[in-house]
Amino acid sequence: MERNLIDWLRWRVSATPSLHLGIGDDAALWEPAAGTELVLTTDMLMDGVDFHVSQVPARRIGRKALAVNLSDLAAMAALPRLALVSVALPVQQGEALARELYEGLLELASDFQVVLAGGDTNSWHGPLVINVALVGEVPTGKAIRRRGAQPGDLILVTGEFGGSIQGHHLDFTPRVQEALLLRDRYDLHALTDVSDGLSLDLSHILAESGCGAELELAHIPIRAAARDCSQASGRSPLDHALGDGEDFELIMAVPPDAAARLLAEQPLEVPISQIGRIIAERGTWGIRNNGTRQPLSAAGWEHRFS
Amino acid sequence: MERNLIDWLRWRVSATPSLHLGIGDDAALWEPAAGTELVLTTDMLMDGVDFHVSQVPARRIGRKALAVNLSDLAAMAALPRLALVSVALPVQQGEALARELYEGLLELASDFQVVLAGGDTNSWHGPLVINVALVGEVPTGKAIRRRGAQPGDLILVTGEFGGSIQGHHLDFTPRVQEALLLRDRYDLHALTDVSDGLSLDLSHILAESGCGAELELAHIPIRAAARDCSQASGRSPLDHALGDGEDFELIMAVPPDAAARLLAEQPLEVPISQIGRIIAERGTWGIRNNGTRQPLSAAGWEHRFS
Repeated sequence: MERNLIDWLRWRVSATPSLHLGIGDDAALWEPAAGTELVLTTDMLMDGVDFHVSQVPARRIGRKALAVNLSDLAAMAALPRLALVSVALPVQQGEALARELYEGLLELASDFQVVLAGGDTNSWHGPLVINVALVGEVPTGKAIRRRGAQPGDLILVTGEFGGSIQGHHLDFTPRVQEALLLRDRYDLHALTDVSDGLSLDLSHILAESGCGAELELAHIPIRAAARDCSQASGRSPLDHALGDGEDFELIMAVPPDAAARLLAEQPLEVPISQIGRIIAERGTWGIRNNGTRQPLSAAGWEHRFS
Repeated sequence: MERNLIDWLRWRVSATPSLHLGIGDDAALWEPAAGTELVLTTDMLMDGVDFHVSQVPARRIGRKALAVNLSDLAAMAALPRLALVSVALPVQQGEALARELYEGLLELASDFQVVLAGGDTNSWHGPLVINVALVGEVPTGKAIRRRGAQPGDLILVTGEFGGSIQGHHLDFTPRVQEALLLRDRYDLHALTDVSDGLSLDLSHILAESGCGAELELAHIPIRAAARDCSQASGRSPLDHALGDGEDFELIMAVPPDAAARLLAEQPLEVPISQIGRIIAERGTWGIRNNGTRQPLSAAGWEHRFS
């Protein structure tokens, strides 16, 4: 890679004291706090799949690359600490693209006090690829897993769903602070984030917990963009909300008392809604306002329900 | 990504108890040992740059993707523990390629008792990209950095240099065990691995330590492959040894007493050679057998010296 990009990146990172770590060695060194577990995740984003370089400013791409990983740590109620960033930059656009990309990423890193601890900067004749590996901390035993849901728990979600492709998938705020606050104040049995789609990500909680769910379809919060998408696709806004994915909201299974308190207190800036309940019977079931009950596909992309 | 690849990968990983961790959650959970620092690194390899899918079995590519990261932890004298693996697989070759790739990677992971703790498996219409992020441990304060070299230290290396492109760059054994043994038995002032080239990687130690080096050019161990490359390139074997890179051997700065003991004991299976000494004067200087002394380019690719 061109030397001056690396020099710029070193300067850019070292100019932010909270982001500086491990520069000048073969690997970063970091001592986590005592009594904590590490939480580790990684995501790779590719031009033409997760974004289109020709249509989106690189700053938003860099931001997204970190944001999707932050959302994975939010899904465990962990505090993000260190990021490792690898890029394959198209030679045609090179340095200008890279700087914009890193600016977007570093801005979000700074917002979440995430240290850029290392990385690998390459150029090639292929399309842009960016990979982030993110390491966080959680007090030992305090991570919220997918596996703890129990029959009788209420299913709560933050925010709204569907139509993320219209912009939300680039500009969402990962629910890190929200997850930490909820973990500290309420008894959460299970937690995940919505990346693949509301019904599919819920099915992961169900599979790991060995139970099922009933969703009250009229209670699922639908993003305005899902209604716009619906007009173009001919599919219902509800179908978009259940299946689109990249909402990066939280799904929680919460015991009834804690859920009632949480819903009454509404402790976050983003609204929290109850969309259903955990049941012993396997599968996901949709309940309509008229009381009809039918199986709901777990796969966000199959759209069996509309 | 196709479901059955993911299922296969889960099975393949879970069939190796030591590799199983964090499957079924949004992120991996891991509690490092008390009194240790973490050591973190990442490397991205791309088709057409770091390997050619059309010319190399995918098994060797997967192996290399982990091996280059293992070498970075060896360069800090750290014990590798967890890997996160992201891939962008070309749709044309898809699953067969992926399985071979992971087999090569998992085999090496098993050899080094590295846990595959998570990852991100994608397919796209671009060339193969694989990223590994690797986390290791070192007792607090025991990592060997680039920065500790002092005038008077001897410069020692493991193995031989040059012509790695003929196969060594795919099949090398990362010097992890070697670095741990050397750290435990000898006083090492500075350490790095040779990825960019012997003279360039040495210059990183010099820059971080604020000193210079004299190399005895006749003492630099030259790989047989470097002589083959020399016949095709017209450049000297020494030039290949100094500049080719991807040797993944260790360079150490060792105080004279410890160095003398180390050279006499030869505690590794691979030979250890003295190639020069650290001096106060900045720059890297080449000494010929006839006593002539001239500046040596730090940049492996500039080949100012031949």
